[in-house]
Amino acid sequence: MQFKTRTHTCGELRTSDIGTKVTLNGWVDTRRDLGGLIFIDLRDRFGITQIVFEPGYNLEAHSAAGNLRNEFVISIEGKVRQRPEGTENPALETGQVDVMVNKLVILNEAKTPPFPIKDDVETSEDTRLKYRYLDLRRPSMQKNILMRHKMYQIVRRYFDKNNFVEIETPVLMKSTPEGARDYLVPSRLHKGKFYALPQSPQQYKQLLMVSGFDRYFQIVKCFRDEDLRADRQPEFTQIDVEMSFIDQNNIFEIVEGLMKILFKEIWNKDLPNIPKFTFDEAMEKYGSDKPDLRVEMEMVTLNHVFENTSFKVFNDSIKNNGIITGLLAPGCGEYTRNQLDVLTDFVKKQGAGGLIWMRVKENELEAPIAKFLSDDEKSNIISSLNAKPGDLLFILTGPKLKTLNIMGQLRLEMARRLDLIKSDAEPKLLWVTDFPLFEWDEQTKRFYAMHHPFTSPRLEDVDFMESDPARVKARAYDLVLNGSEIAGGSIRIHNADLQAKMFKALGISEEEAEHKFGFLMNAFKFGAPPHGGIAFGFDRMAMIFAGEKSIREVIAFPKTASAVSIMDDAPSTVDENQLKELHIKIR
Amino acid sequence: MQFKTRTHTCGELRTSDIGTKVTLNGWVDTRRDLGGLIFIDLRDRFGITQIVFEPGYNLEAHSAAGNLRNEFVISIEGKVRQRPEGTENPALETGQVDVMVNKLVILNEAKTPPFPIKDDVETSEDTRLKYRYLDLRRPSMQKNILMRHKMYQIVRRYFDKNNFVEIETPVLMKSTPEGARDYLVPSRLHKGKFYALPQSPQQYKQLLMVSGFDRYFQIVKCFRDEDLRADRQPEFTQIDVEMSFIDQNNIFEIVEGLMKILFKEIWNKDLPNIPKFTFDEAMEKYGSDKPDLRVEMEMVTLNHVFENTSFKVFNDSIKNNGIITGLLAPGCGEYTRNQLDVLTDFVKKQGAGGLIWMRVKENELEAPIAKFLSDDEKSNIISSLNAKPGDLLFILTGPKLKTLNIMGQLRLEMARRLDLIKSDAEPKLLWVTDFPLFEWDEQTKRFYAMHHPFTSPRLEDVDFMESDPARVKARAYDLVLNGSEIAGGSIRIHNADLQAKMFKALGISEEEAEHKFGFLMNAFKFGAPPHGGIAFGFDRMAMIFAGEKSIREVIAFPKTASAVSIMDDAPSTVDENQLKELHIKIR
Repeated sequence: MQFKTRTHTCGELRTSDIGTKVTLNGWVDTRRDLGGLIFIDLRDRFGITQIVFEPGYNLEAHSAAGNLRNEFVISIEGKVRQRPEGTENPALETGQVDVMVNKLVILNEAKTPPFPIKDDVETSEDTRLKYRYLDLRRPSMQKNILMRHKMYQIVRRYFDKNNFVEIETPVLMKSTPEGARDYLVPSRLHKGKFYALPQSPQQYKQLLMVSGFDRYFQIVKCFRDEDLRADRQPEFTQIDVEMSFIDQNNIFEIVEGLMKILFKEIWNKDLPNIPKFTFDEAMEKYGSDKPDLRVEMEMVTLNHVFENTSFKVFNDSIKNNGIITGLLAPGCGEYTRNQLDVLTDFVKKQGAGGLIWMRVKENELEAPIAKFLSDDEKSNIISSLNAKPGDLLFILTGPKLKTLNIMGQLRLEMARRLDLIKSDAEPKLLWVTDFPLFEWDEQTKRFYAMHHPFTSPRLEDVDFMESDPARVKARAYDLVLNGSEIAGGSIRIHNADLQAKMFKALGISEEEAEHKFGFLMNAFKFGAPPHGGIAFGFDRMAMIFAGEKSIREVIAFPKTASAVSIMDDAPSTVDENQLKELHIKIR
Repeated sequence: MQFKTRTHTCGELRTSDIGTKVTLNGWVDTRRDLGGLIFIDLRDRFGITQIVFEPGYNLEAHSAAGNLRNEFVISIEGKVRQRPEGTENPALETGQVDVMVNKLVILNEAKTPPFPIKDDVETSEDTRLKYRYLDLRRPSMQKNILMRHKMYQIVRRYFDKNNFVEIETPVLMKSTPEGARDYLVPSRLHKGKFYALPQSPQQYKQLLMVSGFDRYFQIVKCFRDEDLRADRQPEFTQIDVEMSFIDQNNIFEIVEGLMKILFKEIWNKDLPNIPKFTFDEAMEKYGSDKPDLRVEMEMVTLNHVFENTSFKVFNDSIKNNGIITGLLAPGCGEYTRNQLDVLTDFVKKQGAGGLIWMRVKENELEAPIAKFLSDDEKSNIISSLNAKPGDLLFILTGPKLKTLNIMGQLRLEMARRLDLIKSDAEPKLLWVTDFPLFEWDEQTKRFYAMHHPFTSPRLEDVDFMESDPARVKARAYDLVLNGSEIAGGSIRIHNADLQAKMFKALGISEEEAEHKFGFLMNAFKFGAPPHGGIAFGFDRMAMIFAGEKSIREVIAFPKTASAVSIMDDAPSTVDENQLKELHIKIR
């Protein structure tokens, strides 16, 4: 269909254009008939311009406009005029003018959409996803996708400017050691063999350091076939970074530089220096390795208060290397027994034995366990938690990490109940460092690498790798924004002896190491530089920057929690012949 | 291992740094022992700096340096000095200075690499690929990968600046209509169902136009499971572009703008305006839809010369709508009978019946068929081909496209023999437009879409879609650089009636169209704008810009022609349990 291409976008006309003949292309956003006049808001990605059909101005165009419906695609020619006094729309950038139409061409008609193309429309997410191409027309989705575009450009510009090299790594790779979650791709040319889609380009980026590229980055799709939680996608986007000849501080500097620019360009905020917490600090203060610092409440470890207690529960806990942790709920002293029961249930569901609570009175702690505590202990609790009359105190005790974690959950639950996170709260970014190198698995009764087996221990802890693995900290770090981990990384082991020690500590035999990590281990024998890196979860970061609660709001074509694309019905059955070619059949 | 991080890279020191204490990190590139002195070229991505170990300067460092071998990774501290007169190295940017070392730390040792880390080393490509991480250390590979990095940044900056939105499209998608070449990914959560990896994001980018994003781009991995030719990879990178409310000229403008910048920034060349050839012109002049214009030789259609010929071969050909095409080989009049036989064999292998040749003499054409031609015809041949005594002429005749194609091959063969493409030849870029919309398939005796079924016909040809499909041209275009297609695209059909006509012409029933293209067809019903786009083969473009002959030279971790990664041995066998989880088994 022949049509005149636009002279201006729908977001462009201003009073300085008055009198100009223009051609606009766009979608009918809304249409109003006022007596003989037809007003149409014409929409494109750049904005909305009001166009006017008046029989006296052009009868043919006016008559043709009678057929227009919402979402029709049209091309119009007309003349820009000042809007009549009192009809200006200050909400629109083009709101001082409109266009008197003398020619209308309908480029395409449109059926009535399944939901109106506007924000705040009640529609099931399934319907939105089925008609994603219409959902994406809504202003909020346009805004999110444009913001994401901006983030891509900022990130790449930043790394380019800092001498990082963008390198693409393979998507069809070898199945990795954590293979159980790999998506597999049957090979047609090699019967019975499979490629795997990368869960991350970890091994490739380490190889690129061996290759001497020194600084690498890539914004890259990764894949994980896990049982999906609400906020996961089978394919997700990662900003992948690796550097040579550096220590942790170099990584921190580079990342802070990026975050400062993102804060400024996306949020127009100045990012203060990013605080650092060790894993132990974060756990003791916030009961989480990804604490939300928008909530100011802090947990307090009370072990020192009960060193000589006669209260058996605390005494036992201390003897067993457990922890006693307290949390102040300011002004909650009037919580009813019923409210306290609900909170007790909450912590029990997380695995706690029970919840100790205390109401702070003028000269007393009112609590079921008060009678077991000495006056010293009581006043010590009050001063440690900085409690005031009218406050409520919680205490949990038990095995350290588990108990801290539950108290961390209670902290967030209280923050919700007290509405402590305002929608305009300042965003809070922090580093968590010095993670444990190993994680004990109760089921298999062995240690696993918390990060991955190439993560370097803190050099001062190397000697404990055999004798006391639990005490060894890793040179690993996470970046946390508003309670979400948005990036994580580590300094890698580049030394063959240390790597051997690590495998030994993990109970991985030389043979197994060779089988699982052979080509990387081999590469390390030819001169590997000290190196480390980090990877950002781009989707989640975009979600937070967009102020959204689901990553699906910042992904153009997301999948559901069961990994289905409702729009095109993927995954789907395929032709038997195709499977034959791939040498596979369905069980 | 503790080490001092560098104060400078190995490409940084100049005479202005003389006297400065510095720390350098890098690889031992070469090592020379001269009497008591040890000279080492220390290498990193940024350059090479000579470091000097002198027993009188620091005995301990000198003694430690005795252990150094090529490709060891080291950290040194020392002082920058002017090189002694006569030992400067003007080939190095750092060549005026060296560093007197007072401390050496070996960060990592290295086995002897399987090939020296330098260019122009004779090594089998398999060895290079197996040790890709070492191959990538070679200067030429570093240069290629850095150039590719630069191209990514140029491309994205350009599209960003021109208001294009970068949007990621799914990698796990529905198997497409051209499904036979899809890589499939079995679903674990949905038994018997499969995702497919995209051969291109074609449908998604058209949906994004329906969504109103107006201008989209993405540098994106695509996948095709075909029997591999030398210059293909199972995964390849595409610059994907789509625009709304445009015609062909808008695409040409945008692409020309990009190519001008690439020519300037990569090659430091000013790109002249890009010439346009219709498919018919390109075929008649160059016998190819991707002509190499670095070869100036042009073919000439001679049908007009032989309109009334009595030479039966030509006469028959004209009667059957065939073509008679001629090519001048300047100065080849002395080719021997043997040489001509070889060329005859060459065209016969391409499917020609035979090769007509003529030697141009002072007053005569010397040729086996000369006796069948009139004087008028002879002089007409000479003037049409602008031939001079001492030249050689070739004539081929037969069915049009096939014959032109063979003559095109002969044209390139003669260019090779005459060494017409110099290594410093100016690069030649051109557009080929107006491709046939349909392609006739002899085997199935039906028409296929030459580009894809959403490609718009030229509007003036729409009426012939049913009556004379072969004559209908498409609004499709290719961008050709030095004889390689580097980009191709089309204006799409956005109108339901025209789309229905297209399906009918292709013999695709409504039902089949719905099954194959359902969700896209459905989307088009809700207001699709006129749109079109283009996709660049990034790997091939990078190869040409790097001056390489294989795309593997510009891909960090390529696969072989049989789709194998020699380095990590992908594809590989996987665990039976994994296959069980995926509900598949090997046939």
